[in-house]
Amino acid sequence: MSEPLDAAQPARRLPEHAPMDQFQVAGGELVVGGMAVSLLAEQVGATPFFALDRALIRARVAELRQALPTQVKLHFAMKANPMPAVVGLLAGLVDGIDVASAGELKVALDAGANPAEVSFAGPGKRDAELRQAVAAGVLINVESNRELAVLAQASQDLGRPARVAVRVNPDYELKGSGMKMAGGPKQFGIDAEAVPEVLARVGALGLSFEGFHLFAGSQNLRAEAICEAQRKSYELALRLAESAPSPVQFLNLGGGFGIPYFPGDTRLDLAPIGANLAALAARAASEMPMAHIVIELGRYLVGEAGVYVTRVVDRKVSRGQVFLVCDGGLHHHLAASGNFGQVLRKNYPVAIANQADRPADESVNVVGPLCTPLDILADRMSLPRADVGDLVAVFQSGAYGRSASPQDFLGHPACTEVLVG
Amino acid sequence: MSEPLDAAQPARRLPEHAPMDQFQVAGGELVVGGMAVSLLAEQVGATPFFALDRALIRARVAELRQALPTQVKLHFAMKANPMPAVVGLLAGLVDGIDVASAGELKVALDAGANPAEVSFAGPGKRDAELRQAVAAGVLINVESNRELAVLAQASQDLGRPARVAVRVNPDYELKGSGMKMAGGPKQFGIDAEAVPEVLARVGALGLSFEGFHLFAGSQNLRAEAICEAQRKSYELALRLAESAPSPVQFLNLGGGFGIPYFPGDTRLDLAPIGANLAALAARAASEMPMAHIVIELGRYLVGEAGVYVTRVVDRKVSRGQVFLVCDGGLHHHLAASGNFGQVLRKNYPVAIANQADRPADESVNVVGPLCTPLDILADRMSLPRADVGDLVAVFQSGAYGRSASPQDFLGHPACTEVLVG
Repeated sequence: MSEPLDAAQPARRLPEHAPMDQFQVAGGELVVGGMAVSLLAEQVGATPFFALDRALIRARVAELRQALPTQVKLHFAMKANPMPAVVGLLAGLVDGIDVASAGELKVALDAGANPAEVSFAGPGKRDAELRQAVAAGVLINVESNRELAVLAQASQDLGRPARVAVRVNPDYELKGSGMKMAGGPKQFGIDAEAVPEVLARVGALGLSFEGFHLFAGSQNLRAEAICEAQRKSYELALRLAESAPSPVQFLNLGGGFGIPYFPGDTRLDLAPIGANLAALAARAASEMPMAHIVIELGRYLVGEAGVYVTRVVDRKVSRGQVFLVCDGGLHHHLAASGNFGQVLRKNYPVAIANQADRPADESVNVVGPLCTPLDILADRMSLPRADVGDLVAVFQSGAYGRSASPQDFLGHPACTEVLVG
Repeated sequence: MSEPLDAAQPARRLPEHAPMDQFQVAGGELVVGGMAVSLLAEQVGATPFFALDRALIRARVAELRQALPTQVKLHFAMKANPMPAVVGLLAGLVDGIDVASAGELKVALDAGANPAEVSFAGPGKRDAELRQAVAAGVLINVESNRELAVLAQASQDLGRPARVAVRVNPDYELKGSGMKMAGGPKQFGIDAEAVPEVLARVGALGLSFEGFHLFAGSQNLRAEAICEAQRKSYELALRLAESAPSPVQFLNLGGGFGIPYFPGDTRLDLAPIGANLAALAARAASEMPMAHIVIELGRYLVGEAGVYVTRVVDRKVSRGQVFLVCDGGLHHHLAASGNFGQVLRKNYPVAIANQADRPADESVNVVGPLCTPLDILADRMSLPRADVGDLVAVFQSGAYGRSASPQDFLGHPACTEVLVG
């Protein structure tokens, strides 16, 4: 996982991956869900697979509960990993589930999520989906004027007022975030300056107004930037609340908590975020006394708990470079191949999972089985020597893995995902 | 589809998309497979969908047959579109099918492809896949020494020698190609300099040697670069043939024929390629008299015959920009969103399919329903004014569409693909 150091020249140290010490190593093997990875592969019955460690997800939630004030509600944005077992586990651990489609809504409800604590966001909700959401009694984050009309009709037809929050497109951005989802012209939410008019319409249509949703961006590793976005979001919501038809009960300040993927990335410091949220919660107690602050996390809850495990099918040397050709790759794990929203490809942390205590002594390319040069899992990374049959683990793979990848591409077997431990 | 021209300033003309005149417009609507697109949407029963026009695929094959010498065999690389109906159509039109996995092999055989004319390439073929290919009697493009051992065992077990061609990693690149798949260190094929040794082993193991596979790159719009790669591939094969255990019967010179996706791209000129191949075929008649030259095309056969059709779900104006939010996007058509191997995002050609004869009079963003800023189908493109319910067509979508996209992402309905006309 780390770049080699030239013993003779201690001068410039290349950026390294954050240590993947959430997983133990025992008997030379990475341990996932309490099992040596080679035994786990036998249990799964085939490679490649994604494995998520139940205990690590529990530990992450506990860590957040410890760091964040008790008044703050924690939601799981299931788009990060919609595997039913994962949603079921988190439905019992966090305070609510955020869904992005009627398909996700079904999984959340099947998993036993309380509809009162489910919210539905997305810029292109179809009429039928909006109607399903009203029937289910979940909170709908409204993103356009059109949705209001559809919701009013559904409320009338179904005899229950739609529960709505207004998703706001703020007039600021989350600095240093991997994906900017607010500020400037956007398809997400309603421009802050147009919100008062929309709030008036919510009231006039008799919809049940519950609050605001502000989501500034995702995958941010700088606590101060997240705190600043939270403060600005709070201020904006406070200002907009003056135009609301009823008190704010739900104040979703988004997420954006990042995890370290690439060399040089370091883990997010939760302490300042906890302190910042405590200050905001204290203000809310007097300024918006009915409001619960909600933090919506996807990747941060599950990303570090998962690995992608693939087996070396071939070992080739081409013009001086070693290639470990694996049975898995881009078709299961598009993000790790560097082809999902990344401008410059960088390596995810990778290990030879069944040789996890051996020194990294050769530079290798880990590639997948597809007939495309895009199918790369590690580009010239220092790893212990591996051979056909060895297992490669790609860390930080619990979020945006299987469900965010083109599984059918080139007709390889579908990928299994397991929740273990 | 084209950028607006300022009438007052005729000076600098922005690059435009190639005209998408393979589809007719009638009654204001794009016609696909002989049907107005809105009627086709009713037949399919839901949007979004991919539609491929059977007549356009036939016409493309006919055009190639006209331009290329009759001695040259034409193969379909089904990775471009593995829809069984498309593979079935092409199995009856071209001379062979190239598969990239046992999954694709099944589809090709089910479609009635003649196993004698099926070839199987891929850098990470699993042992079981190699065995399946020997059982089926298809040609295997060998990419490593390890594959030879597996094939020898399978040949012995099954009582039939594996049919093999050697995939060569040449020592040159295809200039100006979208993806470089040869030259330098690569996971594909066997380095040219190592081929003689591999050929000796093929002979010693009693495998049935049939020829060479050289694939220099894909998506090239410069005929001269393709001709040069073909000439170099031919020369290299001729040189390597001296070490072969038996005469070359199969000489796959790859594909690489591109189609125009982006503003400024122009259609490939087939005439010089036809002349070049005629010259090579004439040489082969004396220099490798048993050899058939094969050209392997995927995208070029089906890409321009397909459209992706999605319906406008919402029309929003955010800070002066218009957003058409559609029911389809990145999850069905990753490449059109700019997230599949593209460094800089550019627009595919897009039209308002049911307003196809109206002037482009506004600049709009066409986006999908996903909660990610990556979900873009057109970035500030000039299009006729469209509203909720209108149909957007993304052209050049017959290849690397549905099967190359993360369909499960965010739990939206699966995408339909139809072959019509």
